[in-house]
Amino acid sequence: MNQVEMIHLSIEDLCIIRSLQEQVKEHLTQIVGNFYKNLENEPSLMKIIKDNGSVDRLKKTLHRHMFEMFSGTIDDAYIKQRYIIAQVHVRIGLQPKWYMSALQDLLQSLIIHVISNIKNIEQYQDNILAVTKIFNLEQQIVLEAYELENEKIRQTDLAEKETMKLQVNHNAEELAAISQETSSATQLMANKVGEIHDFTQRVRD
Amino acid sequence: MNQVEMIHLSIEDLCIIRSLQEQVKEHLTQIVGNFYKNLENEPSLMKIIKDNGSVDRLKKTLHRHMFEMFSGTIDDAYIKQRYIIAQVHVRIGLQPKWYMSALQDLLQSLIIHVISNIKNIEQYQDNILAVTKIFNLEQQIVLEAYELENEKIRQTDLAEKETMKLQVNHNAEELAAISQETSSATQLMANKVGEIHDFTQRVRD
Repeated sequence: MNQVEMIHLSIEDLCIIRSLQEQVKEHLTQIVGNFYKNLENEPSLMKIIKDNGSVDRLKKTLHRHMFEMFSGTIDDAYIKQRYIIAQVHVRIGLQPKWYMSALQDLLQSLIIHVISNIKNIEQYQDNILAVTKIFNLEQQIVLEAYELENEKIRQTDLAEKETMKLQVNHNAEELAAISQETSSATQLMANKVGEIHDFTQRVRD
Repeated sequence: MNQVEMIHLSIEDLCIIRSLQEQVKEHLTQIVGNFYKNLENEPSLMKIIKDNGSVDRLKKTLHRHMFEMFSGTIDDAYIKQRYIIAQVHVRIGLQPKWYMSALQDLLQSLIIHVISNIKNIEQYQDNILAVTKIFNLEQQIVLEAYELENEKIRQTDLAEKETMKLQVNHNAEELAAISQETSSATQLMANKVGEIHDFTQRVRD
């Protein structure tokens, strides 16, 4: 079983998602605008945004990202593209909890602006299920990127520790070698002193 | 702004959630049963489950957890309890992406078995929004637990590296001290040899 099966994302769901794309497009400027307006309430998020480009550029990226999310196609390119964007967010230090709440904000906007146009309740439910699934997949891709980044940090730490261990061992060996050498040299010198001592004794006698 | 504000979780949402609790209770045995049936398709998850207790015990825990999720109260005790359960999942090595897909599976069951009973479309939408919000909050608590656990691992690694650095420095200092000592001792001995040499010279002369 993979995660797509775990969340029961089916071909029918993807067809529904694709069928929503045009309506999503109509509301995207508003949805993306509201999204960044909401972020303005959190100074720590605004700081991250301002340190990493302009709001206008990010709005354009989000616009494209959301539009592609409703393409109804999930292939390697789709996953990879999402992965790259997730990695950027890991690198700029956005905590995953903020990422998740941001996605929830976008999901709610889509429900309010797009899904609410459906007046048949069964159809409404099918659409809700499909959209929550595609958002959940998005979350999973993001989290996998975060996990891999954490794993990378762990591996770097591990490699550094290994290097240090080697350094400690190397120093200890050097210490032992020097002790050995000086001890031999001292012994040699002591022998020489002994010999000289014996010699002077003989000379005196 | 906190994350509750970010996802627009309001008192009205909590009232809706509370109003669903009785209906949720009626379907919980079925929902929890389906949930674990779904997990059976993933051997890696079944192994984690079997290594950490019986399915029956976990079903009871999930049953209680879901029921409390619809209490309509979010206080410190609620957050703390969720936090503890999240930490258990971090410790048993469940990847966050599986946790997220598991929550999606439960959300879908709730939509299909509980929300679908609502026949008024506006009311239906209010309920959907409230339920997705409480699920999103659940995800955020889980992710914060994962992040803190990762941070703890990073701190432990950092402390180990510090200890090693101290060890490396200590060895280097010891090496320097021994070199210094042996060099002094050798010098002393060389002086003595010189003196003896002079003395024997004088004796000879």
